[in-house]
Amino acid sequence: MELWQLSASDASRRMAAGELSSEAYTQALLGRIAEREPLVQAWAHVDADHALAQARACDREPRRSPLHGIPVGVKDVINTRDMPTQHNSPLYQGHRPSEDANCVGVLRAAGAVILGKTHTLEFACGGQMPPTRNPLDLQRTPGGSSSGSGAAVADGMVPLALATQTGGSAIRPAAFCGVYGYKPTFGRLSFEGAKHYSPHLDTIGLMGRSTQDLALLAQIYRLASAEELQPCQVRGLRIAICETPMWDQAEPEAQAALQAAAHQLAQAGASIVRLELGDAFKDLTQQQDTIMQDGGRGAFLPEYLAHPDRLHEEFRRKVENQFGHTAQQMREVLDAAALRRIDFERASAGFDAVLTLSAPGVAPMGITTQGMATFNRIWTALHVPCINVPGMRAANGLPIGMQLVQRRYEDARLLQVAAAVADVIDKPG
Amino acid sequence: MELWQLSASDASRRMAAGELSSEAYTQALLGRIAEREPLVQAWAHVDADHALAQARACDREPRRSPLHGIPVGVKDVINTRDMPTQHNSPLYQGHRPSEDANCVGVLRAAGAVILGKTHTLEFACGGQMPPTRNPLDLQRTPGGSSSGSGAAVADGMVPLALATQTGGSAIRPAAFCGVYGYKPTFGRLSFEGAKHYSPHLDTIGLMGRSTQDLALLAQIYRLASAEELQPCQVRGLRIAICETPMWDQAEPEAQAALQAAAHQLAQAGASIVRLELGDAFKDLTQQQDTIMQDGGRGAFLPEYLAHPDRLHEEFRRKVENQFGHTAQQMREVLDAAALRRIDFERASAGFDAVLTLSAPGVAPMGITTQGMATFNRIWTALHVPCINVPGMRAANGLPIGMQLVQRRYEDARLLQVAAAVADVIDKPG
Repeated sequence: MELWQLSASDASRRMAAGELSSEAYTQALLGRIAEREPLVQAWAHVDADHALAQARACDREPRRSPLHGIPVGVKDVINTRDMPTQHNSPLYQGHRPSEDANCVGVLRAAGAVILGKTHTLEFACGGQMPPTRNPLDLQRTPGGSSSGSGAAVADGMVPLALATQTGGSAIRPAAFCGVYGYKPTFGRLSFEGAKHYSPHLDTIGLMGRSTQDLALLAQIYRLASAEELQPCQVRGLRIAICETPMWDQAEPEAQAALQAAAHQLAQAGASIVRLELGDAFKDLTQQQDTIMQDGGRGAFLPEYLAHPDRLHEEFRRKVENQFGHTAQQMREVLDAAALRRIDFERASAGFDAVLTLSAPGVAPMGITTQGMATFNRIWTALHVPCINVPGMRAANGLPIGMQLVQRRYEDARLLQVAAAVADVIDKPG
Repeated sequence: MELWQLSASDASRRMAAGELSSEAYTQALLGRIAEREPLVQAWAHVDADHALAQARACDREPRRSPLHGIPVGVKDVINTRDMPTQHNSPLYQGHRPSEDANCVGVLRAAGAVILGKTHTLEFACGGQMPPTRNPLDLQRTPGGSSSGSGAAVADGMVPLALATQTGGSAIRPAAFCGVYGYKPTFGRLSFEGAKHYSPHLDTIGLMGRSTQDLALLAQIYRLASAEELQPCQVRGLRIAICETPMWDQAEPEAQAALQAAAHQLAQAGASIVRLELGDAFKDLTQQQDTIMQDGGRGAFLPEYLAHPDRLHEEFRRKVENQFGHTAQQMREVLDAAALRRIDFERASAGFDAVLTLSAPGVAPMGITTQGMATFNRIWTALHVPCINVPGMRAANGLPIGMQLVQRRYEDARLLQVAAAVADVIDKPG
């Protein structure tokens, strides 16, 4: 096994035991980047010298946390005080904020190495596409908008990465790239210092290569404690399979993968039930889109006013409310989403997790698409924590992501159940 | 009339007509600050030379908007690229971000002069109190947490200011200082670049000395168009008087002032009805507090980790969830707030505005208190737009603020009705 293949948890254990230095691990990851980046193009910015300087500083210091010395990639819509933050936007070329985003500041306090900035759809919203390719098949999209975070974690360039999700921007690339992706409960992890889009939806996402890696980050962010994350057995878990009202938009292979995952979990002793979400949840897909788009009216107003000729038309359309959203309509969609939160709360009580698809199928061909957020929108609108668990595969070998969902603020339980589920459906080999 | 007494709208008209330069107006305001600041202490930072340089640059340029050349004060929890942003926190002494907040960037694009940073309660949340005094009575609080913005606008130091509100931090100081304060619909004006506290509540607020001044800002922020802000008559307006379930916590003089305002509006031809909010809205006051406090778990985590010994105990308590908020409780309070939004939507349909108190009474004595948010919490939780209209007074001459409320996203209608109401209850002399 090469050093760059180590998970964050394994690297952390070796560092704690004095068997691995942050510098050596960082150097190995930089080597992997040097080899693969020309093909994958996951990074908007990597400064090898700066990364190694951080790693050496970590090696000299007492360990601050289990994340001490572990490199993390940061989506390039999240501010970093020592690197450019360019939002994949021509308006922000070379832009260097002086402050870390809240989520980056927490990583630094924990002693992490900020390895570099990962590629994104412009402002994690629209406009300019990232050049990133899916490392599992370079002809395909890694998904977006957290394209670089998904691709870099999948390709062994970095063990952990920060993402964002307003529609499906963290879970979808995690699914397409075959890594673990985690969207915490809305509002629990501060969005301060990331590029805002919709104040009703914007969420920081986390990516890693195992549930243990997600748990490492979750503990640093105080989303779960070590006690809450004690291993649990699949045997006896009550898992609700949810096809969602968008089931007819899933590819047959994805539909079959969800059934197969349910079967494997049942074989392992889980109790499998079906959760039907009514047609109101189908409407929620469109309502989420309206809430999201409308956020752009305020989010991109400074860029619209300062650069009227250079701002991409997609953002102009949002600022000018070319969709014609009315006050009445906005109240209706926001209230509908709030009512569905209550409906889901009732419908999912008593389940240890809901299991659904992370995406309609495998990563589509081409990098002019990022795939559909069909199976993400309702969960984002519901503010619930979600984890993409890889392991299931299509006939061509590409991953079909399974999504585990819990009720709001049950992040710790979700992480615990995801670890048990992953032991069943994501076995090595 | 002295130049510093000009409202933003009047100054704008004179500038457009070539009768007043931004430099002369800014100079007059700086003179007022030099005279009064030792007593009032509204400002965390003013650099006269820098303000005048901005003003002279405005005078040289073609006018970009009606706000061109008009000075604005900015609450010191809102980032400015050319001035310190210190949050009234010992952790941020001398801190200089390199980027403007969204709401400041919009002002710059409109050609405004950023006059300086106004004092605030630490992080607009707790901890260290600001030194600011109420300019109407120096023995009293100006209210908070937007203390400096309220005091500076009231005292003629600046015609307009940016504030924030998570509980009652914009409407309350506006009421205590006798100025116009406006909390837009939650989410319409981006909070990006201001210090976050609760992602479910944080809102940028606006202050001025007339409804015309608020309208000037509202148009710049695209919260209302000139067409929507055409004057309307009080005659025929349907105004709902709402005592709220916290009526027994209002001072008798405040209770009388609300009745007197209703009487004046009735005399002017408005149709006055009563709106009763049920006891569920009383619970909303406590629910809002729970939602708000819980936001601190994520909001102050970087400061907690980086400065464990220097962070004020109030923030530590929030990060550590010493309140013991459970997942179940958080879902309950968030869902209750969402249901009250729907209740209020139904209850207030057909009214041109709801009229209620902005605060339980006049500004309390002393500057170790900021007064109570009793009459603000439910409106913040409801996400509705609110405007404080001054004009009513207690026997000692101090202002008793009247609060006008509309349904979410009806900001334009609220501004229009507030102008008509102000013509009745805030007549000069």
